[in-house]
Amino acid sequence: MLAEIITIGDEILIGQIVDTNSAWMAHELNNIGIRIKQISSVSDDRQHILTALHEASKRADVILITGGLGPTKDDITKKTIADYFGVKLIENKEALINVQEIFKRYDRPLLEVNRLQARVPENCEAILNKNGTAPGMWFNEQGKIYISMPGVPHEMMYMMEDQVIPKLKASLKLPVIIHKTILTVGEGESFLADRIADIEDSLPNYIKLAYLPKLGQVRLRLSGYGENEATLKQEVNKFTQKIIERVANVVAAEEDIPIEKAILNYMAEKGLTLSVAESCTGGYISHLITQHPGSSKVFLGGAVSYSYELKESILGVKSETLTQFGAVSKETVTEMVEGALSNFKSDYALAVTGIAGPDGGTIDKPVGTVWIAVASVNQKLIKKLTFGNKRRQNIERSAISALNMLNTLLHDSGK
Amino acid sequence: MLAEIITIGDEILIGQIVDTNSAWMAHELNNIGIRIKQISSVSDDRQHILTALHEASKRADVILITGGLGPTKDDITKKTIADYFGVKLIENKEALINVQEIFKRYDRPLLEVNRLQARVPENCEAILNKNGTAPGMWFNEQGKIYISMPGVPHEMMYMMEDQVIPKLKASLKLPVIIHKTILTVGEGESFLADRIADIEDSLPNYIKLAYLPKLGQVRLRLSGYGENEATLKQEVNKFTQKIIERVANVVAAEEDIPIEKAILNYMAEKGLTLSVAESCTGGYISHLITQHPGSSKVFLGGAVSYSYELKESILGVKSETLTQFGAVSKETVTEMVEGALSNFKSDYALAVTGIAGPDGGTIDKPVGTVWIAVASVNQKLIKKLTFGNKRRQNIERSAISALNMLNTLLHDSGK
Repeated sequence: MLAEIITIGDEILIGQIVDTNSAWMAHELNNIGIRIKQISSVSDDRQHILTALHEASKRADVILITGGLGPTKDDITKKTIADYFGVKLIENKEALINVQEIFKRYDRPLLEVNRLQARVPENCEAILNKNGTAPGMWFNEQGKIYISMPGVPHEMMYMMEDQVIPKLKASLKLPVIIHKTILTVGEGESFLADRIADIEDSLPNYIKLAYLPKLGQVRLRLSGYGENEATLKQEVNKFTQKIIERVANVVAAEEDIPIEKAILNYMAEKGLTLSVAESCTGGYISHLITQHPGSSKVFLGGAVSYSYELKESILGVKSETLTQFGAVSKETVTEMVEGALSNFKSDYALAVTGIAGPDGGTIDKPVGTVWIAVASVNQKLIKKLTFGNKRRQNIERSAISALNMLNTLLHDSGK
Repeated sequence: MLAEIITIGDEILIGQIVDTNSAWMAHELNNIGIRIKQISSVSDDRQHILTALHEASKRADVILITGGLGPTKDDITKKTIADYFGVKLIENKEALINVQEIFKRYDRPLLEVNRLQARVPENCEAILNKNGTAPGMWFNEQGKIYISMPGVPHEMMYMMEDQVIPKLKASLKLPVIIHKTILTVGEGESFLADRIADIEDSLPNYIKLAYLPKLGQVRLRLSGYGENEATLKQEVNKFTQKIIERVANVVAAEEDIPIEKAILNYMAEKGLTLSVAESCTGGYISHLITQHPGSSKVFLGGAVSYSYELKESILGVKSETLTQFGAVSKETVTEMVEGALSNFKSDYALAVTGIAGPDGGTIDKPVGTVWIAVASVNQKLIKKLTFGNKRRQNIERSAISALNMLNTLLHDSGK
């Protein structure tokens, strides 16, 4: 079963927003055995939307459309879909009640443009939007399913989870797709490929292996396509296990999770706690960790010590250390990680200090210079890394490097 | 001048990664007057890539392709592009030297798969990859430009900035596109639309207005398309000013920046400092702030006080307050914001405590309950908000709400 996603809106095409909806939708659809053939972002332009719908309908069985359902003049999706099917718009009772209730709840007068949001193409089933005024729309036309949803992420997500996914499962006979991912840390893509070349060559044609490298990590993803869930799962698992055994020394997780989640799982299982002292990463590591449910079992918190003063007051870094060696130094990062361990009373701590840029570099310490320390009471791992001159990448790479180092320290301690 | 972006890789279509490359590229291309007609994500499949290239070439003058250039077996972009043009692959000297130098630098043996990375279609100009082993490729074919780049974001970004953008500017006679964006906080899309309806109706057909709503903010974006940069800029500015004057009370920025950047600009100009005390947002607000260059002028840092103990030790929240009212309460958020102000010695502070979920809710305080406080020594704004049950959205919405509140407090103080 093939699907395509069409996202409508100039804001994506001018790069004002990143299309996060499509990845989320693709993930959900893959989970129920619907493969995504193509994701297309097109402009708020009638002819372009019509062409995209036409092209997608030639390739896919399910066409999901997001965006362009707002109350304003640049929102033309609904009218264009009605034209595509050659039908007119009619007012939908439930959708109107929903709009009215939302405006009542916020004690705001209902404008004519809002009332118009309750109008939908006459050949559709309206999908209730519990989080906004624009209803979704479900069409069964010529053996294909078309689903139009708002582009606002949380409105689309609730609609997908509560209504679209269950309805797709009920309407379609879905094939089986099994993905298994192994997260490795510390070995390059081509070296991994070399180590498992014979396993890769022995894969049947309905199981594909992909390498997804990113910042010192490589994800190995096996994807199996078939009919029988039990046998396919068994086969994919068999090859996954073969690979895991072969490269066991660099495996951080046997599932598709980010490195910080692998760390959280490992530490939770061992009853260990973590705190952080972030300077140049500015809260990003804490954010990566705390976005995961249950992180509070492991993560106590920490300091974002951007200024000298906060490095001293919260972490107990000595004033002389900062003066003599500077904030970006082995000495400072050592005192930061020791300060986090003792002040926050965690089993493990992590500290990062560096020059994220674009300014603040010197000849000795150019922009991109980062000191990272990970430590327990008994062990310490300290590294200096040198990245480029792009601030956001320096923050991201520093964070991932610190997490990779913590992962290594944890697993080395465990041996 | 129209361009299309084709991203190649199953990892996007199964929702494993979010396509951030396209938005970045679209933004850069728009800046030099190249409009993006469509962004398509297609699978690592020969026929599908060929079809996508063919379709894009019918619509656009410049086709940018990312992904599928790695050394492993699932990377088929290069071979497929060669087939598309009916040419063969030849070894490129500079690309080979680059690969050899990279392997030498990391003191790793050069594998045959890496050597193969220096082979490119014979009709292309190879583009040096300063950050990786896969060269980019530039093709001039039948009046169109095709550019193939690696999918690894920082490799692609350096290549675009250093080589592709300058070469596009030199090769093409580019039209002019002017975007102007106004950031508003605190008024809904349809109410804004109603307030500026007459201005919107008076826009010439070559200037478009778009509404981009998100979490209590609406961006109003005017886009002008034309030939003469000076007159077009003047006209777009004229309409932008009209709108700004009309809705002045809700304007947070007269340019396309996120709310935290608007706050940083405002505070830097006034010489004000900020600290934070984050519980349920777990470092996300600090991260939003510190991703911006120059944030250290305003932002001193703060605490990610996930545990009770850290709320007490770093922020000075009283143990009795936590016991009597709970961590998610008006009393606790008040002591958190006051603790940040006095312990971190900033002019303004912001504190957030809530139940991000999915667990931890009670009948009185369901998941999604969040207390936010923003304060200076003289003023305080405290609010309880109730969001849904999705952890990441609760974190994001809490952060944006806190920033919206800080923006309001700052501007009210300024009056």
